[in-house]
Amino acid sequence: MSRKYEILADNVHLSEDGKSIIIVDQTKLPNVLEYLTLSTAQEMYDAIKSLAVRGAPAIGICAGYCMFCLAQQNKGENFDDFYAQFLKDKEYINSSRPTAVNLSWAVNRIDKMVVANKDKSVAQIVELIGEEAIAIQKEDIAMCKAISEFGLSLLKEGDGVLTHCNAGPLATSRYGTAIGPMLMAQEKGINVKVFADETRPLLQGARLTSYELHKAGVDVTLICDNMASMVMKNGWVQACFVGCDRVAANGDAANKIGTSGVAILAKHYGIPVYVLGPTSTIDMNCKTGDDIVIELRDEDEIRSKFYEQPMALADVKCFNPAFDVTDHELIAGIITEKGIMRPPYTESLAKLFEE
Amino acid sequence: MSRKYEILADNVHLSEDGKSIIIVDQTKLPNVLEYLTLSTAQEMYDAIKSLAVRGAPAIGICAGYCMFCLAQQNKGENFDDFYAQFLKDKEYINSSRPTAVNLSWAVNRIDKMVVANKDKSVAQIVELIGEEAIAIQKEDIAMCKAISEFGLSLLKEGDGVLTHCNAGPLATSRYGTAIGPMLMAQEKGINVKVFADETRPLLQGARLTSYELHKAGVDVTLICDNMASMVMKNGWVQACFVGCDRVAANGDAANKIGTSGVAILAKHYGIPVYVLGPTSTIDMNCKTGDDIVIELRDEDEIRSKFYEQPMALADVKCFNPAFDVTDHELIAGIITEKGIMRPPYTESLAKLFEE
Repeated sequence: MSRKYEILADNVHLSEDGKSIIIVDQTKLPNVLEYLTLSTAQEMYDAIKSLAVRGAPAIGICAGYCMFCLAQQNKGENFDDFYAQFLKDKEYINSSRPTAVNLSWAVNRIDKMVVANKDKSVAQIVELIGEEAIAIQKEDIAMCKAISEFGLSLLKEGDGVLTHCNAGPLATSRYGTAIGPMLMAQEKGINVKVFADETRPLLQGARLTSYELHKAGVDVTLICDNMASMVMKNGWVQACFVGCDRVAANGDAANKIGTSGVAILAKHYGIPVYVLGPTSTIDMNCKTGDDIVIELRDEDEIRSKFYEQPMALADVKCFNPAFDVTDHELIAGIITEKGIMRPPYTESLAKLFEE
Repeated sequence: MSRKYEILADNVHLSEDGKSIIIVDQTKLPNVLEYLTLSTAQEMYDAIKSLAVRGAPAIGICAGYCMFCLAQQNKGENFDDFYAQFLKDKEYINSSRPTAVNLSWAVNRIDKMVVANKDKSVAQIVELIGEEAIAIQKEDIAMCKAISEFGLSLLKEGDGVLTHCNAGPLATSRYGTAIGPMLMAQEKGINVKVFADETRPLLQGARLTSYELHKAGVDVTLICDNMASMVMKNGWVQACFVGCDRVAANGDAANKIGTSGVAILAKHYGIPVYVLGPTSTIDMNCKTGDDIVIELRDEDEIRSKFYEQPMALADVKCFNPAFDVTDHELIAGIITEKGIMRPPYTESLAKLFEE
């Protein structure tokens, strides 16, 4: 029996009838692999807000499907009524994580498409929303695959790779970005060893990266962030592959806190650092990393989150930046779906955007 | 009312009557400040084994007092009977943490003194054991004070200092080593800001260093290990002060895992790194850091310790070294109770041991 809606990626996909979204509940990992079915707007909102679905591309993909499922529930019989409800749904979904760029990007993309097709019937528009949502996911899969192939071209049998945080299939769709090359290596029978930084304070490396790689059969070793220096000194790492949240026009790259430290250690030990992400992550309006504002998060993530009891006094000050900026001089290459960009980035990145 | 036995340091001291040892239960910190009274050999053994008392110097001090309290309970009326029981007690206490060098060092020091005084009465020998145990603590206090003074000479008003792991009063006696200069600065009204790495996986920086500094009124900020790069980049750190477990003749220094990473980051940002510890930590028989064997610890310390539920799958491999070696080229000075040793360490350290 063929499904009406193909399962494009396990972490986020449509139900068989296309009326609900099925997601892996990432908050339960690594202890339980549990799927959530999202049918109502409230369930969708809660899933995004609670980080049951996380990772910028995965949120965008999920948001696209949210708009499709809600469009099917939309009672508007003419365009104006339909669109009024559509905008309400869009605002509601978009408010679930106000700072997630991919979330608003996805709902705006669908909005634009809806407006462009206002002359079509509501039923046709609903169908088009479904196609657009599927297109968002297919494009992400193609992007991840291309990035992974370019990344894999830098690896050879027996190489060790260090990665930080999580930029795998859970955060995106198939393959992911920074760990895509290693998953692809595994598929092709090329043996690589991965060292996954646990990535404090939220432990995405422990909870998600080591989980994903281990489940895929990749040889993965989990380490605390402060062990990266020794692992590199031991000669176990031939390359560092990391994701990115935003890349400036000069190649400075913002990524999960600790990435800049990994890059400095790698430079010291003569190991190349590659930043992997889609071209949509490159912000040519952002001249250098100095222009990137760093989110400061709740201090309790350091003092008490995940623990049976607090590990520091409640009135001890903490500094908890979510990201840091890795200087472009520390980066050997920026790997996008269009290829491997090399220094000087001011030139190689600019070329990407020339039409 | 003056006590017969002065409280030389809060973390380990004799009871008023000198028959028991009172220690801070470090396993309960930072949530509860609880004191344990150790009167029987079993209680002493358990306290050391369970890490209720930890930190190499603190263990040595505690072991000295153990031998004194047990000597008072020793029923031997002549030297031979007394010494037979003494040796039993010594072996028992010494077996509580077989790899703790300061533990065997302290009990052997007292043993040697006992043998040298075998012609004295048992009562006199017991009294001498008490004096020797007190001497061990007083020497450590003097050493910590001297180290702290030399360290303080490198700081000025407003400086920021980054430290890793815990080398404070709890692990030693008053002042400690690596955080001694900052505690002494506070006493003298010199304002310094300390950034304490939480120090995964056992979190000594969170549980103990931030606790000790905060209680003493020092301006301390707790960070995850992977945030050190950003804190340094922000210009908030003028020096790194770290402890040491063993220093080789060429200045290579073994200390808590992550120290070498801190030193590499500091070099990148042009910040000096100082290693603080007593001359007894310098092992002239160890030519370089390559000769230092690194203890590998239980993988569950990374996967599940302290957490409400595991943060990684039980069958995900972990690499959990307890220490790493910081290359002497990354160290601006080694601060001992005899002064600040500067490169080339092969010469400056050798001079320390010339008589």
